[in-house]
Amino acid sequence: MKRMKAMIAYDGSGFAGYQVQPDSRTVQQELMNVLKTIHKGQIVQVVASGRTDAKVHATGQVVHFDTALVIPVAGWLKALNVLLPEDIRVLAIEETDSSFHARYHTSGKTYRYKWDRSQIISPFTRNYMVHTKQRPDVAAMRQAAEAVLGTHDFSSFCAANTGVVDKVRTIRRLDFEEHGEELHMVIEGSGFLYNMVRIIAGTLMEIGLGRRHADEMAEIIAASDRSAAGKTAAAHGLYLEQVVYKG
Amino acid sequence: MKRMKAMIAYDGSGFAGYQVQPDSRTVQQELMNVLKTIHKGQIVQVVASGRTDAKVHATGQVVHFDTALVIPVAGWLKALNVLLPEDIRVLAIEETDSSFHARYHTSGKTYRYKWDRSQIISPFTRNYMVHTKQRPDVAAMRQAAEAVLGTHDFSSFCAANTGVVDKVRTIRRLDFEEHGEELHMVIEGSGFLYNMVRIIAGTLMEIGLGRRHADEMAEIIAASDRSAAGKTAAAHGLYLEQVVYKG
Repeated sequence: MKRMKAMIAYDGSGFAGYQVQPDSRTVQQELMNVLKTIHKGQIVQVVASGRTDAKVHATGQVVHFDTALVIPVAGWLKALNVLLPEDIRVLAIEETDSSFHARYHTSGKTYRYKWDRSQIISPFTRNYMVHTKQRPDVAAMRQAAEAVLGTHDFSSFCAANTGVVDKVRTIRRLDFEEHGEELHMVIEGSGFLYNMVRIIAGTLMEIGLGRRHADEMAEIIAASDRSAAGKTAAAHGLYLEQVVYKG
Repeated sequence: MKRMKAMIAYDGSGFAGYQVQPDSRTVQQELMNVLKTIHKGQIVQVVASGRTDAKVHATGQVVHFDTALVIPVAGWLKALNVLLPEDIRVLAIEETDSSFHARYHTSGKTYRYKWDRSQIISPFTRNYMVHTKQRPDVAAMRQAAEAVLGTHDFSSFCAANTGVVDKVRTIRRLDFEEHGEELHMVIEGSGFLYNMVRIIAGTLMEIGLGRRHADEMAEIIAASDRSAAGKTAAAHGLYLEQVVYKG
C-alpha cells in the first residue's frame, strides 16, 4: 500500500461542508466517490487536515489516502481532476511516508477571511466575500489584532457546542491586507477551535465598525467566555489557505 | 410617467439568459418581478440594450423602464438591490429623457471574453472563464484580430438561426489583454450579430492553438459563410461590459 498526500481546492458554495453526512453533498463524499471509481468499487477512506463548514472554501486543504494501485503522480492528478466535479480540484499530489497523517501531524494552518467594502457588492463575488457596506476602521482592527497574537485560552472564540477540552492555541500571525475594495484577514496559528477564525473575524469587524473599542480584545480573550466575543462571521468569507506539517 | 435608465450587472451562471421565457429563470423576469412588487402588482415592462444568452454575464448591461412613482434615484437603487436576488445588481440608475430607448438608440457595445490558461482551472473561476490548458499563441491571435477591425459583412460569424438580413457591422477595437494566467479578448463595435463575439473568440482561439493560420481570418470573413469560421466559444467566458448610446 502507498500513502498519497494531495492538496485540494474547493468552492464551498455547493457543499454542506467537508465531512460526509447523510443526504448532503460534501467534499469528502465526492472524493471518496471518485476514489471508489478508480479502485473499481473498493471503498477508500480519505483523511483531511480538518473539516470545513458549509460554504467555507479551501485553496490549500490537505488530504491523504492509501492505495494499492500503481499509478504515476501525473496520472493521479489527471484521473482525479477528470472524475471530480469542477468545484473540487486537486492542485498537487505526491506519494508520502506511510506514517504521514493529514490530520494528526499538522503543526499549523493559515486561514483567510475576505470582506468586500464596495458600496454595491459584485454579483460575481457574492459567494466568495462578505459584504460590509459601512467602511471599517482597519487601523483599529489591526490594533485589536495584536492582543490575539501569542498563546491564549481561546474559549471566548470557540462555538459552545464542542467537546474539546484544551482550548489553548497559539496565533503566530494576524494581518489585514487591503486589495482595492477587498479587505482580507490572514490568520496563522498552531491550530483552531471550532468557528474560532469566524468569531475572531466577526469580533474584529465589530471593532472596525466602532461597535466595540480596540482595547476590548484583550478583555474578551481573558473572559474565556463565548458570550464576551462578537458574532460568528458568515461562512462564505472563509478560506482554508495552507496546512503545515511537522518535520 | 418618468423613464428610468439603469446599468445592471449579473452573474449569468444561474440564468437561462436575459430574455423572459416560460418556466426558466431569466434576468428580465427577475427585474419585472421586483418592479411589479414596487408598483404594487402593476406590470412594468423592462427593455434592455439586447439579450444575452444562458450563462453569459454582464458587468454593464443597460435597461430602461417607465414609472409613475416619485422616488429619488438613491431610493430606486436601494429598493431594487434589496429586492433583487444577489446575482443581479443595479450599479446605477437615473431619470432619462422619455425618448431614450435602451435597445434602439445604442451606438456601440463592448464585450469581454475571458480564458484561464492555468494548468488546473481554479474551482472559483469555473463559471467565469473558459479553460484552455494548451497555451495559445497570443501574438498570432493579435495578428488575426487585425482582419476583423473595420466594417465587414460578418455572415461568417453569425449563428445560422437568425432572421437578421443586414449582417454588416463595424468593429472599432479588438484587443487581447493578459492578466497573469487570464487572457481577455476585448471587442468593441457598432453592434453584434447573434453569437458573433463567441464565434470570433472561438475562431481566434483556434488560430492561437495552431489549428488555423492567422492569415485565414481575412478569408473567413470574405467567405460570408458560417461554416468557414471556427466553433462558437462557450457562453460562460462572455461578459457584456459596456453599452454606448447616440447623442
